[in-house]
Amino acid sequence: MNRKIKMGMVGGGQGAFIGDVHRRAARLNGDIELVAGVFGTDAAKSRQCGQQLFLDPARVYPTFQDMVAGEQKRPTGDKIDFVAIVTPNRMHYPIAKAFLEGGFHVLCEKPISMSSEQALDLKATLVKSGKLFALMHNYTGYPMVKQARQMVADGALGKIRKINVEYSLGWLAAPNAGKQAAWRVTPSEAGISGCMADIGTHAQNLIHYVTGLDIASLNADLATFVPGRALDDDGSVLLRFSNGARGVIFASEVSTGEENNFVLKIYGDKAALEWRQESPENLVIRSNDAPMQVYRRGWAGACPAAQKACHLPAGHPEGFLEAFANIYRAFADAIIASQNGDLNPVGDFPGIDDGISEMRFLEALVKSSADTSKWVTM
Amino acid sequence: MNRKIKMGMVGGGQGAFIGDVHRRAARLNGDIELVAGVFGTDAAKSRQCGQQLFLDPARVYPTFQDMVAGEQKRPTGDKIDFVAIVTPNRMHYPIAKAFLEGGFHVLCEKPISMSSEQALDLKATLVKSGKLFALMHNYTGYPMVKQARQMVADGALGKIRKINVEYSLGWLAAPNAGKQAAWRVTPSEAGISGCMADIGTHAQNLIHYVTGLDIASLNADLATFVPGRALDDDGSVLLRFSNGARGVIFASEVSTGEENNFVLKIYGDKAALEWRQESPENLVIRSNDAPMQVYRRGWAGACPAAQKACHLPAGHPEGFLEAFANIYRAFADAIIASQNGDLNPVGDFPGIDDGISEMRFLEALVKSSADTSKWVTM
Amino acid sequence: MNRKIKMGMVGGGQGAFIGDVHRRAARLNGDIELVAGVFGTDAAKSRQCGQQLFLDPARVYPTFQDMVAGEQKRPTGDKIDFVAIVTPNRMHYPIAKAFLEGGFHVLCEKPISMSSEQALDLKATLVKSGKLFALMHNYTGYPMVKQARQMVADGALGKIRKINVEYSLGWLAAPNAGKQAAWRVTPSEAGISGCMADIGTHAQNLIHYVTGLDIASLNADLATFVPGRALDDDGSVLLRFSNGARGVIFASEVSTGEENNFVLKIYGDKAALEWRQESPENLVIRSNDAPMQVYRRGWAGACPAAQKACHLPAGHPEGFLEAFANIYRAFADAIIASQNGDLNPVGDFPGIDDGISEMRFLEALVKSSADTSKWVTM
Amino acid sequence: MNRKIKMGMVGGGQGAFIGDVHRRAARLNGDIELVAGVFGTDAAKSRQCGQQLFLDPARVYPTFQDMVAGEQKRPTGDKIDFVAIVTPNRMHYPIAKAFLEGGFHVLCEKPISMSSEQALDLKATLVKSGKLFALMHNYTGYPMVKQARQMVADGALGKIRKINVEYSLGWLAAPNAGKQAAWRVTPSEAGISGCMADIGTHAQNLIHYVTGLDIASLNADLATFVPGRALDDDGSVLLRFSNGARGVIFASEVSTGEENNFVLKIYGDKAALEWRQESPENLVIRSNDAPMQVYRRGWAGACPAAQKACHLPAGHPEGFLEAFANIYRAFADAIIASQNGDLNPVGDFPGIDDGISEMRFLEALVKSSADTSKWVTM
Repeated sequence: MNRKIKMGMVGGGQGAFIGDVHRRAARLNGDIELVAGVFGTDAAKSRQCGQQLFLDPARVYPTFQDMVAGEQKRPTGDKIDFVAIVTPNRMHYPIAKAFLEGGFHVLCEKPISMSSEQALDLKATLVKSGKLFALMHNYTGYPMVKQARQMVADGALGKIRKINVEYSLGWLAAPNAGKQAAWRVTPSEAGISGCMADIGTHAQNLIHYVTGLDIASLNADLATFVPGRALDDDGSVLLRFSNGARGVIFASEVSTGEENNFVLKIYGDKAALEWRQESPENLVIRSNDAPMQVYRRGWAGACPAAQKACHLPAGHPEGFLEAFANIYRAFADAIIASQNGDLNPVGDFPGIDDGISEMRFLEALVKSSADTSKWVTM
Repeated sequence: MNRKIKMGMVGGGQGAFIGDVHRRAARLNGDIELVAGVFGTDAAKSRQCGQQLFLDPARVYPTFQDMVAGEQKRPTGDKIDFVAIVTPNRMHYPIAKAFLEGGFHVLCEKPISMSSEQALDLKATLVKSGKLFALMHNYTGYPMVKQARQMVADGALGKIRKINVEYSLGWLAAPNAGKQAAWRVTPSEAGISGCMADIGTHAQNLIHYVTGLDIASLNADLATFVPGRALDDDGSVLLRFSNGARGVIFASEVSTGEENNFVLKIYGDKAALEWRQESPENLVIRSNDAPMQVYRRGWAGACPAAQKACHLPAGHPEGFLEAFANIYRAFADAIIASQNGDLNPVGDFPGIDDGISEMRFLEALVKSSADTSKWVTM
Repeated sequence: MNRKIKMGMVGGGQGAFIGDVHRRAARLNGDIELVAGVFGTDAAKSRQCGQQLFLDPARVYPTFQDMVAGEQKRPTGDKIDFVAIVTPNRMHYPIAKAFLEGGFHVLCEKPISMSSEQALDLKATLVKSGKLFALMHNYTGYPMVKQARQMVADGALGKIRKINVEYSLGWLAAPNAGKQAAWRVTPSEAGISGCMADIGTHAQNLIHYVTGLDIASLNADLATFVPGRALDDDGSVLLRFSNGARGVIFASEVSTGEENNFVLKIYGDKAALEWRQESPENLVIRSNDAPMQVYRRGWAGACPAAQKACHLPAGHPEGFLEAFANIYRAFADAIIASQNGDLNPVGDFPGIDDGISEMRFLEALVKSSADTSKWVTM
Repeated sequence: MNRKIKMGMVGGGQGAFIGDVHRRAARLNGDIELVAGVFGTDAAKSRQCGQQLFLDPARVYPTFQDMVAGEQKRPTGDKIDFVAIVTPNRMHYPIAKAFLEGGFHVLCEKPISMSSEQALDLKATLVKSGKLFALMHNYTGYPMVKQARQMVADGALGKIRKINVEYSLGWLAAPNAGKQAAWRVTPSEAGISGCMADIGTHAQNLIHYVTGLDIASLNADLATFVPGRALDDDGSVLLRFSNGARGVIFASEVSTGEENNFVLKIYGDKAALEWRQESPENLVIRSNDAPMQVYRRGWAGACPAAQKACHLPAGHPEGFLEAFANIYRAFADAIIASQNGDLNPVGDFPGIDDGISEMRFLEALVKSSADTSKWVTM
């Protein structure tokens, strides 16, 4: 029987940015429907939000615990298949744990938790549950990122030597940057890091996704430029990788005038690649022996994973939502496979181990920076 | 009572390009649901397509006439509110007419018909019906196109002097370009023009949308480069506008290597603008008196219409689907207004007069070119 | 005996743009020295200019006739080897003729003359003189233009189908654009055309240089936007080429905000190329079968002619002057070959036939446009 | 009396890269003539080189000591006015010292010496000599760099917070990169650093030129990727500036496929700027409150220093040579001022203090990196 995957959501009430993105992305392919949710901590506003989303009021719950309980009671085939968690960082772990223990698949925003300890505990919970877990590192969903990954795997770059990642935003340049900004630099909501938890983790994750390399040690300088913030709003870090490669991540949310300037440059001994999130349909390949090549989304030269990730033909620009939707699609496919009896469905989406890694990365950053930027081994 | 707008579709079966785009675009905002359709002329395939779209099999009709009749019989509130027509050109007119006469709003792919006569007849039908009609010139849905329009209206460019439009694709460069290509150069399906009907009309429409100017006369050179085609696969045309401005449109579907390279450049006596569909988030403003400015979608300087057309913050790339979705959103809003008693809802989407214009443009092009490119007054 | 080539100049007094460019370009390679000149029609200013250029005052002549006579009288080896003519258009022909008849090689700014009749007469004079003649179409001197030419000749693009050339400047957008602008739209100084003589000829010449194709017929619409001008300051033209290709040139000097935006796009049935004068170090190659390639000046993939035209390694930007200097270098090499007994030295620089072509092109443009843009066969 | 400035050169024999660049740059403005030199250590090749440069053989000297002595003996007005030193690093200091002590002005390639001790000694020599000294940090000669500097000085960026500099080249990616490459990674020729001495110093110098800020402390990770090299061919460094700003320089000569990718990004609390050496005619200004602006060389908005540094109108691309030539022009102007009695001519070119700074920077880098990247205070 052909039916849509049923999705629940925790977080993403009025004024929230990422919750709305999740809903649009989930809709894009037409095979997922949002049927239940807790849209913030204010029950009245949550109900109003649910109404705007055409939800059955009975499935707009006051708390996530109510939602676990309520959905568990529904008949088979009429429950949510998975929950998407789009709250501030602090709540990722308890909510994810509750839904996994309640028997639901979980898709969670990054960073996964407040500590690596929580992340490890979540992994234990996940293993016990037999459920699926996806971590929303959405940039891995871009077709040209998949192309990059494939070309590295194919050896097109040779041995990787240097990895430079820039992630610059200007949205926190001024002291008063709004509610979305406020919780990200508040320790009780965001954890031990502000800027690095918010965007540095994307950099670390994307490096790993594309190259498979792990950071062996790092040397960080975190900064807080806007007075009154308790967490970093900027940081730079020197990297050494397990294979001998070196690198740099510099990330900032006080880079005035920058929108979402996330750039990945990887140099091997044969060739190099460059990918820019703000022009995501290009993958630039350079070498000393040939003219520069620009692989374009949907055009000749794309690998199967990049082709599969396309929603439209080349020249019909895709963007952030389609990349996001690719994570949803891969996760939905894995859920279907699971429902069809596959005990260990593997999909092209980040998971629990990415979450553990990102928390260790954050902890190492903070430790290194606090100790006047000594090298810290991961 | 809060309910989703109900949409039907004619066309867009398996392998069709634009039908799927329409469905994705219609889904994006979450307020439209596809509930009925005729997905191509093969009834079995259409049913299969309906099933993949999770439709009630009873609402997957064998013919568009059946669909008009079937939907008319359903209770109020449970019928489709509008139909989207995404067939080859030949069928736009009869289907649109049938649905208007059946009491349904219509959203139709361009070009509107096979002749200006049909377009005029459709206008008469529309007026009689009291229904709403939208023509899918999707490029008008881009935020930075709306910004361009506002800046021209505000006089930021001064008096318009020159308008240059390039629209280059390479997809028909080779003789055998597939089923999607074949009907576009077949007179019985496409009409009196191939390339110009397919993409030249976008150029003419976008010029009008942004500047409000009408073409007063034109001088065209249409060409067919690939042997065996009965219609143009390329063309260039000199333009004179009603206000004294001049211009050029050069459009081609045999421009090897081009994806969807649609570029609009408008020069006034104060300033000039440039917009490129493949980098749709930029609007470049040049003058002799100031540094170049690049307006970015979602960033400072955007007018209300451009802001309203955004789905995501700046730096989170939007593309073709979001622009498409903006037409759907505007049309859905007009339908709701109509249902709420507004007798003449006005929305920011192309309509019947754009359809009449585009057919006159095509007829003038063909006449001019046939007569060894004399100036033809429109 | 190793000596520098000795150069004279007519034109290029204070405030002149192109004369100074010629001098800088001639200096760049270190093998040409300016030794004599007539720097404008005001003898006092000319002397002052000569002094600033460190010239022997005895070789700063009041008129070009004096210069011919004066240089002829000097001992062998101490005369100028060639003259560079950088006056307004009107004077190109009489000065070139005088120097050729006087036994000097001539390098002349474009357009070559005021009419094709003059150009043909100049050719007869040239043939009789046994001297060398170069026409300064400087854009042919760019390395990536030479790369483009070689790739077309090698068949990399296949059969050429479409050629689109844009040449947009904004410098004449306002009525009062200065002395340099004034003569260019004054018939007695500039000839039968303004904008097209100034920049349209570059477009026509570059197309021929890169593809070898001749324009078979054309259909033009010239315009004068700024009141009071007696010549075109804007124009667009449809082109048909001898091999069946079609094309468009649109050129304008009233394109507000444009600097020197000269773009050449050539489409063949295999691949296409794009070159932009404002980013002259890139040559973009597109096809339907491969990722986009960007050939870069000085980098892998460059042909010998492109490599030879480089002054600096890749990544050390070259520009307009180096391209200009390449014409000078090629002309100087031909002069040296001639002095070494080569009766027919062939060099990579435009010559007398390019001048005849450009005048016929201008005459056809004016004829076509005057006759409400009929096709005119060349 | 109007005469050209007379220049001598040490270094720059056949096959040398930078010597030829110096000669072209010196020629460009027409007011400097090369009259003497020592073109490498092989006297026969040097003579041949001198002949190709049309020099008087008597002024092509076997050693720099001979050149000092030989030129001192020539009559006043017939000596060289200054010497350009374009040898490998090792010889900069002794040659510069000899010419200063010999009474000649000196223009020297960077880095100034092998140690800060030498640089300090050279300053003492310079002061005693009363002569002028220029250090060839050519990137400071670009018009848009001067524009950047002026805008920072004017407060357009507000308080500087973050400075990110990338300098990536691929030319040393392979082990065998030629003679030009070899000496740069040989301690006896290059000094204590390879990559950082060659290009890292440009980064440090440009930051200072544009912002006026000094590096307070740094934390570096230098690397040698190609086996067999005794010096770094890559490095990254975290920076803290005197005003509280932070930053990163990452420089590499093993960045496969990169040409000369030198990028400066500076973020203030009001606005930010970006300049890219490979597209040197653009200066991008971003803020949170206004559309992006692109200042273009020669166009509206340029400050007097940027305007003065132009050789050609906007749209006629300038590049590396013109920037280089601007340093020569400024130095020549200072020499003329000195000859006209100005005891302390100030010109817009880097000087002795830049040399001392760059050596301290290199020494701090090496110290930090050797000690597993601790913060080193400068």
